Order: sequence, then C-alpha cells, then structure tokens
Amino acid sequence: MHVDLGNALETTPGVTEETLTRLDSRVADAHERITAGMADDEFGYAALNLPETTDPDAIRAATDRFDRPEAVLTVGIGGSALGAATLADALESDVDAYFLDNVDPDAVASLLDDLPLDETVVNVVSKSGTTAETLANFLVVREAMEAAGVDWTERTLVTTGEEGNLRALADAHDLPALDVPDGVPGRFSALSTVGLAVPALQGHDIEAVLAGGRDGMESLSASLFETPAYAYGAATYALAERGALTNAVMPYAESLETFAEWFAQLWAESLGKDGLGQTPARALGATDQHSQLQLYRAGPPDKLVSLIRPTERAETGIPETDLDGLAYLGGSSLGDLLDAEFEATEASLAAADVPNLRVEIDRVGERELGELLYEMEAACVLYGELASVSTFTQPAVEWGKKAARGLLGGGDFPEADAVADKRELRIDGS
Amino acid sequence: MHVDLGNALETTPGVTEETLTRLDSRVADAHERITAGMADDEFGYAALNLPETTDPDAIRAATDRFDRPEAVLTVGIGGSALGAATLADALESDVDAYFLDNVDPDAVASLLDDLPLDETVVNVVSKSGTTAETLANFLVVREAMEAAGVDWTERTLVTTGEEGNLRALADAHDLPALDVPDGVPGRFSALSTVGLAVPALQGHDIEAVLAGGRDGMESLSASLFETPAYAYGAATYALAERGALTNAVMPYAESLETFAEWFAQLWAESLGKDGLGQTPARALGATDQHSQLQLYRAGPPDKLVSLIRPTERAETGIPETDLDGLAYLGGSSLGDLLDAEFEATEASLAAADVPNLRVEIDRVGERELGELLYEMEAACVLYGELASVSTFTQPAVEWGKKAARGLLGGGDFPEADAVADKRELRIDGS
Repeated sequence: MHVDLGNALETTPGVTEETLTRLDSRVADAHERITAGMADDEFGYAALNLPETTDPDAIRAATDRFDRPEAVLTVGIGGSALGAATLADALESDVDAYFLDNVDPDAVASLLDDLPLDETVVNVVSKSGTTAETLANFLVVREAMEAAGVDWTERTLVTTGEEGNLRALADAHDLPALDVPDGVPGRFSALSTVGLAVPALQGHDIEAVLAGGRDGMESLSASLFETPAYAYGAATYALAERGALTNAVMPYAESLETFAEWFAQLWAESLGKDGLGQTPARALGATDQHSQLQLYRAGPPDKLVSLIRPTERAETGIPETDLDGLAYLGGSSLGDLLDAEFEATEASLAAADVPNLRVEIDRVGERELGELLYEMEAACVLYGELASVSTFTQPAVEWGKKAARGLLGGGDFPEADAVADKRELRIDGS
Repeated sequence: MHVDLGNALETTPGVTEETLTRLDSRVADAHERITAGMADDEFGYAALNLPETTDPDAIRAATDRFDRPEAVLTVGIGGSALGAATLADALESDVDAYFLDNVDPDAVASLLDDLPLDETVVNVVSKSGTTAETLANFLVVREAMEAAGVDWTERTLVTTGEEGNLRALADAHDLPALDVPDGVPGRFSALSTVGLAVPALQGHDIEAVLAGGRDGMESLSASLFETPAYAYGAATYALAERGALTNAVMPYAESLETFAEWFAQLWAESLGKDGLGQTPARALGATDQHSQLQLYRAGPPDKLVSLIRPTERAETGIPETDLDGLAYLGGSSLGDLLDAEFEATEASLAAADVPNLRVEIDRVGERELGELLYEMEAACVLYGELASVSTFTQPAVEWGKKAARGLLGGGDFPEADAVADKRELRIDGS
C-alpha cells in the first residue's frame, strides 16, 4: 500500500509537514503500545497477529470436503460477513458468493428461489451463536434445503466460538466447523477463518492473502513517515481533529466497492465513541463524480476524500470513432479514462482546498488485498490510540439489540418499553 | 409517503414544534415560488411537472419493438442511470437490468462476457450526447456486439436531447429514440423517459409510477404540517442549520438500497453549495446496525438518521426451534424481526438524543415508488428554497471534467496543467 498525503497539506481543514512531524512522536508511543498489545495477544491487538496465527491448512481441511460448489451462501451479519464479502467481490471466481446479511423477507425469499441449493455450500458465521438475524436466517435456509430434498448436514459449514448454539449444532450433526479466534472483534476478523473460508471455497489463494497481511505486519514501524498504515491513520486523525468529520472513501475500481463497506464498518464502529469519530461515506469513482463531487467541492468544509486505486488494470481499448468531439477518446483505453478521472478529481478537490489522500495498491490480487485490509486495520488501531478511544468495543449497539429482543417477546427489557413511548409528529398528506 | 418528525423534537441537534411553526411561514412562501416555477415550466421546477408531462405511450412505442429481451443494459452515468436503477432494483422482473455507469475496464469486460448480447437491449442515455464515460462505454459495447455477430442497430435504444452525437447516431441508423425533456436536470429525471424506459422494457407498469408521481403533486400544499414532502425537506433543512451536516439514509428493505443512492445524488448535487448542504450517508437496515450504529449513537452530534420502510412486506416465517435462547424467534417472521429492529434502532437513537426521521411507504410497488421519488424531489427543492441555494445547477463538477479531458488530449485546459503540479508526500513503506 502506498499513501500520498500531499493533497492534505495546507487545505481546509489541513495539516502541515510540521504538524505531522510533531504528531510523529505520538505515533512512536502508539506504535510501542500496539506492539506490546500484539506481543501479549491482548483483546483487539490480537487481530494484528492474524497473518501469523491463522492456519490456512485448518481452513482448507474444513472447506476441501465441499468439492467445487456452484455457490457459497454465507449467513452472517456485520463483521461476520464483510471481510469475506470484500475478498469475494474483489476477486473473480466461477464459484458465486452470496451473503445473507439482512433479514429482509423479500430478499431472502428471492435469493433462495434462485440458488441451486443442492450445489450450494451454506457458511453460517456467528461467534456467539446467538445473533438473532443470523440464526433466524439460518433456520429459514435450513428449512428451504429440507423442502428441496437437500441434506443440509452435508452442505453446511459452521464458523463460531468454542461454545454456543452453533457449536452444539456442529457437534450434534458432525458438521465441519471452524473456530473464530479469541480476542478478535468481528470487524477485525477478515484475515481469520471468518474472512478466509469463502475465498478458500471459491478457489482463491488464501495463503497469498495471509502473506499480504504479513507484508503489512512487517511494514509497521515507529514513524508515520516510514509506514503507510500509520501515515493514513495519523493523517485521518489529525484532519478529523481539525474538522474533517466525514471521510469519503472513493475507490476507483468497482471490485473495491465492498472494500469501502468493510472500511465503513471498521472506521465507524471502532472510532465512533465519546463524541469523537469520523463518518465514513461510501463513494465510487468515477460514478460518484456525477453525484457527490459537487458537495465535496462546494459544501461544508467538514470532509476529507480518500481516493483509492490499483495501479495495474485490465486493458480495454476504446474503439476509434468519428463522433463529433469524441475523437480524442479513440485509441485510448477505459483504464486511461478512469485514471484521468482519478487524477482530475484529486486535482479538482485540491483546487477547491478540500483535503484528499491517495491510497494505491499495485493490483487487485490476493496478496495486495491482504496487505490493504491489514494496513487499514493498523491505521484504524493507530487512530484509536491517538484519540484515546476504546477501539475494540461497541457498547452503543447493545441498547437496540435488547429493545429488539424485548419487542419479539425474548425477555423483559426496559429498552423495549421505550419503543412504545415513541413521540409522534406524523404528517400523512391529504 | 408518511413522515414522522417526532424523534427530531428536542434531540441534539433538534427542533421544537414552535420552530417548525415559525418555519412554516417560510414554507408557504417557498411553496408559492415552487408552484410559480412549475406553472412557467422554469428550469428545474419543470421536473415537478413530469408526472403530467411525461407521455408513457411514447415510451411504450419506443420500447415495444424489443420483444421481451432477456436483459437491458443501460449505458449512462449519474442521473442518466440512477432513476432507472432505483426502479429496476426495487421491482422484481424476469428481464434483468444492468447499468454501465462507470468506466472500470475489469467490470466492463466481465459484464460483457456474461451478457447474452443477442438477447440484450442496449439503452444508451446522455442528454448532451458527449458524456465521455457514456460514449466510451457505448463504443466498447457496440464493438462487442459486432464481434459477437449481433446487429447493434437492431438492439439499441437511444435517450438523448434534440441535438448531438447520439441524436445524429439515432437518425443515421433509424434507431428508436426517446427525448430527454427540457428543463430537467439529470438527477430530477426519474419520472421522465430517462427513468421509465428500463421499467417499461422490464414489463413494469410505468403508468402506475406516473400516477404515484401525480399523488405526490397533489399532496403539495402551503404547510409542512399537511405535506409529507415539505415536512421532510423543512425538517432536514432545520436540522442541518442546527448542525446535522450528515443525513444517514437507512432503508429497512434491500429493494430500496439503490433508492438510497439515488437520494444521495439528489441531495448532494442539489444542495452542496456555498459551503452549505448535508452529506448523505448511505446505510441499510438492519445490516448497518452492526456497522454504523455505534457511530450514529456515540460519535459527533452532527447527524440525523432517516429510517425508511414499507409497511407491507412478504411473509417469511421463521421455523420453530429448540436452539438455546432462540425459541422466541420461532413462529415469528423475518418481517417481524426486521420491523422490531427498525423500531428498536429508532428508539435507541432517540434514547441517545440523536434526531431521526421516519419515512414510510405502504409497499414497494410502482405507484408507491413514483410517489416516493416525486416527494423526495419536492423535499429537496423546498430545502433548496429555504437555504437560498441554486438547487438545479452543479457548477463544481465542471473543473474536473475539463481536467480529465485535457489529460486525455481532448484540448488545452489549464485545469489539466494543475494535475501535473500535484504536491507529493508519499509514504511507501519498507
């Protein structure tokens, strides 16, 4: 991963090289804290050891018994789905990957109608084994398999913690089961069994993904000027402190669209605490130039834009044309056009004084993705250290879980009573 | 469309009923301005007349000659794609809809490989006929059709302005061609030929979409307390003025995920001006409860959350289970679970003092979608009036277009020179 901070120097908000130099001594302290946490396999920090602690052979042992399925259906939500989805959507495979990461009845029904259930592997993922959405979806999927005459016990892979419903289910039916590693919050689990079972089933090189993660590990040093991950984490932190409360993450590659979603979870859930944090806005280049760029350039100065691209792309030439005013496109390629748009957007933001960061990877491949995911996690951990927040917890999501459970009759929770007390000011029209 | 402002009363930021009452006299003035603009078919305001001025028979005449294709491939970007994509992704059809709204060489090549080109209608959309991304993609698609031995002139539909390259192309090859209406910016064109050709090709009831738009027209009145569109527009405006610079748009229906993208363009490009505007953050319920909710509840108080749902859903029961602690789910349905999550999230935000707006439609159907799109456009126009911005222009996107064109050798532009002057501070790691 390569990071270029040039277009965040003296913008509004912005930093200077002197700011970054001053910040660098805090980066050194944070790096010391991070390496100590890694050495002790502390909760959360353990995630940064995954490239070394994840055993690809265990993943292969569990996935190899499914002989090249037509499709893999992951039943999981949030961190149980997004890492695998990022890899699956970035890399081409003839094994299709689907994700049931919501409980929308229309979408679930329509997906189950379309899937060849007898050629599909169901990959159910929940660390606790009690996530309501995941378990409800799994019950529906299992029933659909039974209705279609498919033996679900032959086609189900479980990824879960040491105990709980899913572990018991796997034991009872002798299902292949992978362990969710200890000490790793879901949003940091892409480089574990949670993120790698799907790419393994799709025939991707998960050893290369982990090797990329190790490249990321090795790149960590005590200075942001030597470490792309820390350069990104420190710059986004400093810009947020100076008012860039929104981070628009804009990959110029459709294959990285899900990466932007993964990033959004990592950033929001890790750093959105104590009234601090930075809102990740998911965008896509060049498409969103025709949608969000007006706002980024001319709206409130509360943003930074992270522009991400692979430097190597497929070659798709644009045919010659005599269409009026378009001759200049002929003989060029779609990749040239996309890169020109990338650089033009970057310059256009700079000309409007809007900070923007360039992040590049060499290509969209297994190793580069492993490195990208690892280094963005390290960037996030560094940001959390600098902001003194509790990076690895998510206390604010518990309230709603209790309320939902109470509403469904799953116990007595005062949160559910608050739902009934909702204040109304309803406008229904004529 | 039904709007409930109750959970934005006295939150942080928030409004009071008195605030809204004071604001209502400005809403009355703005409504007068809007109806005058509509009466004169003024630029932009003309969009609010589309439910009456769009001729569904002209659309049918152009699309009927393609007899139930397997797929429709729209080549267009921004407003030329998002309205049609919103309808196509919300409504089920056995005619698949695809959108080439980016110039990513990998994605274009992979899509063209998969499409049955001899059973696909290509729908190329550009008002000016010069949009670089659209024309480049069209040239690539046309070449692919020729290479596959498909007569592209038999399978291409053009939607464009009165003059320009695409009009000339349609004339030269006698292609069916639809007119982009005058006075309608792309992001406001969902209820015109631009948005309706694709659903017509998919077999949807476009007359019902337009009827829904007329429901929206008829709902407009001089008071926000009587008009859901104005209630939404006035509340979002007042909350933005009070610090809610981000509007997280979170539909609780997968079928409305593209609607959130359409909304993001409408909101960002119309209102992001003069240092004002509100950043649309696209989210999806319940999935993003496991991703963004931590930030919304505990991050900076610069947000409002718009929760959107259909009140009618498909019935997908959750099978009974004896899994530990999950018995409460059995006999319930996925829709019940999703609605419980909706109400729990709403209450959880309110308990954390975060403003949130409830928007409901009766179901995800043609008529309801027509009304939703219309009323959100009217909400946006009202917001623009209240903020005194130039709602219907997008001056800040021109700079980058010139720079990109200059980089590709399409002329001499000083903007392209600025790209070469980019400041660098590059961190490459070890």
